[in-house]
Amino acid sequence: MAKPPNGKEVVLLTLAGHRVPYKTSETRKLARKLTAMFQTFDAIADPALGPPRVKALRAAMAKAAIDCVLVPRADAHQGEYVPPSDERLQWLTGFSGSAGFAVVANKGAALFTDGRYTLQAGLQVDPGTFEIIDSVSNDTMGWIARKRPGGGTIGFDPWLHTADAIAALVKAGKPKGLTLKPLTRNLVDFVWGKARPTPPTGAVSVQPLILAGVAAETKIADLQRTLKVEAQDACLLTLPDSISWLLNIRGADVAHNPVVLAFMLVPAAGKPELFIDRAKIGPDAKNHLKLVEIKPPDELLTRLTKLKSEKKRVRIDPATAPELCVRRLGQAAVHGADPCILPKACKNAAELKGARTAHVRDGAVLVRYLAWFDREAPTGRLDEITAASKLEALRAETQHLKEISFPTISGAGPNGAIVHYRVSTESNRKLGPGELFLVDSGAQYQDGTTDVTRTVVIGKPTREMCERFTLVLKAHIAIATARFPKGTRGVQLDMLARQPFWQAGMDYDHGTGHGVGSYLSVHEGPQSISKRGMANLEPGMIVSNEPGFYKAGAFGIRLENLEVVTEPSKINGGDREMMGFETLTLAPFDRRLVAIAMLTDAERAWLDAYHARVLKIIGPEVGPDDRTWLKVATAPIA
Amino acid sequence: MAKPPNGKEVVLLTLAGHRVPYKTSETRKLARKLTAMFQTFDAIADPALGPPRVKALRAAMAKAAIDCVLVPRADAHQGEYVPPSDERLQWLTGFSGSAGFAVVANKGAALFTDGRYTLQAGLQVDPGTFEIIDSVSNDTMGWIARKRPGGGTIGFDPWLHTADAIAALVKAGKPKGLTLKPLTRNLVDFVWGKARPTPPTGAVSVQPLILAGVAAETKIADLQRTLKVEAQDACLLTLPDSISWLLNIRGADVAHNPVVLAFMLVPAAGKPELFIDRAKIGPDAKNHLKLVEIKPPDELLTRLTKLKSEKKRVRIDPATAPELCVRRLGQAAVHGADPCILPKACKNAAELKGARTAHVRDGAVLVRYLAWFDREAPTGRLDEITAASKLEALRAETQHLKEISFPTISGAGPNGAIVHYRVSTESNRKLGPGELFLVDSGAQYQDGTTDVTRTVVIGKPTREMCERFTLVLKAHIAIATARFPKGTRGVQLDMLARQPFWQAGMDYDHGTGHGVGSYLSVHEGPQSISKRGMANLEPGMIVSNEPGFYKAGAFGIRLENLEVVTEPSKINGGDREMMGFETLTLAPFDRRLVAIAMLTDAERAWLDAYHARVLKIIGPEVGPDDRTWLKVATAPIA
Repeated sequence: MAKPPNGKEVVLLTLAGHRVPYKTSETRKLARKLTAMFQTFDAIADPALGPPRVKALRAAMAKAAIDCVLVPRADAHQGEYVPPSDERLQWLTGFSGSAGFAVVANKGAALFTDGRYTLQAGLQVDPGTFEIIDSVSNDTMGWIARKRPGGGTIGFDPWLHTADAIAALVKAGKPKGLTLKPLTRNLVDFVWGKARPTPPTGAVSVQPLILAGVAAETKIADLQRTLKVEAQDACLLTLPDSISWLLNIRGADVAHNPVVLAFMLVPAAGKPELFIDRAKIGPDAKNHLKLVEIKPPDELLTRLTKLKSEKKRVRIDPATAPELCVRRLGQAAVHGADPCILPKACKNAAELKGARTAHVRDGAVLVRYLAWFDREAPTGRLDEITAASKLEALRAETQHLKEISFPTISGAGPNGAIVHYRVSTESNRKLGPGELFLVDSGAQYQDGTTDVTRTVVIGKPTREMCERFTLVLKAHIAIATARFPKGTRGVQLDMLARQPFWQAGMDYDHGTGHGVGSYLSVHEGPQSISKRGMANLEPGMIVSNEPGFYKAGAFGIRLENLEVVTEPSKINGGDREMMGFETLTLAPFDRRLVAIAMLTDAERAWLDAYHARVLKIIGPEVGPDDRTWLKVATAPIA
Repeated sequence: MAKPPNGKEVVLLTLAGHRVPYKTSETRKLARKLTAMFQTFDAIADPALGPPRVKALRAAMAKAAIDCVLVPRADAHQGEYVPPSDERLQWLTGFSGSAGFAVVANKGAALFTDGRYTLQAGLQVDPGTFEIIDSVSNDTMGWIARKRPGGGTIGFDPWLHTADAIAALVKAGKPKGLTLKPLTRNLVDFVWGKARPTPPTGAVSVQPLILAGVAAETKIADLQRTLKVEAQDACLLTLPDSISWLLNIRGADVAHNPVVLAFMLVPAAGKPELFIDRAKIGPDAKNHLKLVEIKPPDELLTRLTKLKSEKKRVRIDPATAPELCVRRLGQAAVHGADPCILPKACKNAAELKGARTAHVRDGAVLVRYLAWFDREAPTGRLDEITAASKLEALRAETQHLKEISFPTISGAGPNGAIVHYRVSTESNRKLGPGELFLVDSGAQYQDGTTDVTRTVVIGKPTREMCERFTLVLKAHIAIATARFPKGTRGVQLDMLARQPFWQAGMDYDHGTGHGVGSYLSVHEGPQSISKRGMANLEPGMIVSNEPGFYKAGAFGIRLENLEVVTEPSKINGGDREMMGFETLTLAPFDRRLVAIAMLTDAERAWLDAYHARVLKIIGPEVGPDDRTWLKVATAPIA
């Protein structure tokens, strides 16, 4: 799945790269057509609920003597998915998108979100209560200053914002007379009251050593060695995937990402402390977690205060940790990157073995699926929902599926051109002849996380479809065959995928690839192949390779495999070792969409070799009918 | 000319990318062979002079109560070339390289320089006085801390270091108990005494409006508008090329770059002040400079103190301005990038017209030169010096040459593999058959700065030479034909040039391209096509395109043209406008070195079209014999 863009790189993706001002009458029509999909899937969204809730919030603000309050879509762990107890933005505004935040002033309120969601937001929230503002031109403080030209006090929940984010807001607010005030109680929660869901207590499971590769004790010892070298007394971890990786545990607290919501304090010597709701820990986990001291989450702040009074040096990552934790540590806080991020990203041999196994399993699912699709689609009986459901059902049949790794993107014809399309009963489209079908999906298996996109044709494609498909394929092959030395960053590789598009005066408005975890988050840093990809690529990192092309109102194409960065190796005739990629994903690309003349000899050779590999490995994993289909689908090109 | 690398990207270039520990006995031999070239050209270098000077410096340090002193190779303007009065590093140590700095402690001293110069430094400085340390693993403060484990005071001349550089040293020194102390008098100058050359007083000339394109008054008005928008009362400029560009003046203070050494204070309203030695200003310049108030340089600090006491907001660039200026402004300093850097880099229509004219003139020189070379080289009478001299003589014959834009790199056979080779009477090599000859040179004409590299063969090349040459040519063409949208950075384009090398397990250890000024510095920011190229490429920027390949002990290949970034334009069939490059340099590539089979159809077409353009434009500019040669040299490739 293409990672949702954020920050300055975001462009209006609403209609796949074509900037659509959502208020014109023409796009209004389209908007209505798309409305239903959000309403169906996000049943809670009801614009009418916003006004009374905002009114109650303003009363609470007045009592707290603040002029304005920030309502982010975030929990204390800054993940992509939040539990229902942290869906404050949706509860207050009706908006259910995955990115955005609200600002409620005593007069006026605004919902900030990026171009992917402006359409949806316009339909989900009450227009009389909230202005909808594109967060790309994200001048939050400018908006507030216009509402409060004389300055004012902005309240925020210091659990829900990172220290870096607050520092940036403080800086931007200063010349405008706006000050930020951390609140001791979340005002939305206060208004929400007893109806607010309780925090999740998903059961903690243990990731077996054979899959994790390195024992938690060893990882902790490595981390403690780092702390000693850097003369730090302890390190506070607040990212759930860092903690889950470090302790070899997995959770069920949020959708799609099997992370455990918790905090962890790792001292330079001695037993780490895990701040977690004991309700999550069953007998197995309890036994495994003997290597830490279990403490209730509400003891964390007292613990930080103690560290401060003891004048300890505590490493904390201001880019990801709650502002409150950094502030509570005060002078004891030593700013430094979360030390688990990089080792977690560089998969060890056991994790890579698991990933390969998971991808053979998933490849067999995909081949069965694509063969089924080729038989069924021409009958005209399929639609986007039945097509998505079948894929999920086949994954479930493996008996290994823990969960899908994100909501399946199943888009036919023009719906394929909506980059982050989610099908609903209202938007659901019959699959018709001469159309392209884009399906982007993934599985969480215990041995690995998958994420794959294929685009196939129903019936006969147009010449334009084939030419664009081949352009995407060329970009995909450019990444798959890239060689690069140590020290190469994702931003450099991104260029290889884009150059064929730029030569043709085209582009796609999402990154080329994102990091992927090992039965963890499907979007993982620090690696990324994109304009923002400043981290070095290191051996063992898993990244997606997913260039695309989107023609608004017509079709979308995306071709995605996962790749592992290989160890540097010698190249015949060369004098320097180069890294490269090993492709994990095993499923055919639709040969009927390849404009052979557009491929170089080397590109044709790559495609044939890849298909031969798919046939060899996946052929034995599927039944005779599907194998026959696969032989045709993977036959050498031209 | 490839820009000398610095900072973390530097690798040991001594022998073109092969890391050579300069102390092994084998490289010692090579070292001796190369010694002479530095000694001939840099006659002042005498290791024996170092020890007594260091002794006298230590006495001065003791009186000033400091434990250590920094001696950079820099003046107050941070340029690539410094006047003789600022050659303190060379005077003190004997080292004449263009990058490095010394640290003299009361016990022990070290010369830090990068891999290009470690060999040279080892021969120029007294080994009993200075340790030679690779500045890549540049832990200056670590070295000092080992000499002074109990901490100490480090003196520095606050004119010669930027505020950012000092801030970094202060931070690194703090945990080691090392403090930095700005000195009110430069201790090296004190020891140097009356023998120290006086600062330069090169005459200021006026760059005519027809070449500058925009009047100085207009540029100043634009800058003042920016200052008003950003609520700044004034801006201090300390970079000579910024001031020269802003005022449309040129100078003769340092070698090769026609910049004026001066400081300038631009108020948000009113007349700017130029702090400059009046001796530089003749009658013409005096008339032109009526738009500023001329003040002696030694009034600058008093002026800054006044601005501080008036509580003004003065913009200053801590990345380039002397630490002393930033400190003197105190609370009045508003940190911001030098506002001339970006507009100077984006050439206007008049500057681009000048650049095109300069390149036609220079192209004719190159064609005459290459034709002459082809006739003369096979006779066996040429050597690197005669070859370089001829090229400079032909440029002088144009009657337009102000100066060469850097010392010509003229390297035959194995000398071509030394990236920053400078020929000397001792290193001078006869040009023999079967060898490659690399010549990298440039001119400062009043209408434009040129910088071009060609690599040619004498007699018959080997297959390996042709294959490597073609690899370099492919990389060159990849840049020349690149298309890219607004917002693309140099680091992205760099990848296009390197991918052919990386696929072959090879690389080159310098950037692919640097910015070039308009009758200004031949190395200009912010643009750069390299791993460090984080600035966006903007229309009108001039960059070099100079990939290379170096086989130590055998040959070097570099192919360099200058390119202008074009305005975004529509591409047939596409929906987004893309920028690209217009090639300025006009001279044939050696067709005898092209392995045609390695080129794609598109690459062949590019080469033929470029050669046809060279013939069409330069053909009429040269005599009949050279034109006949040019026709053959630019004939379509197979």
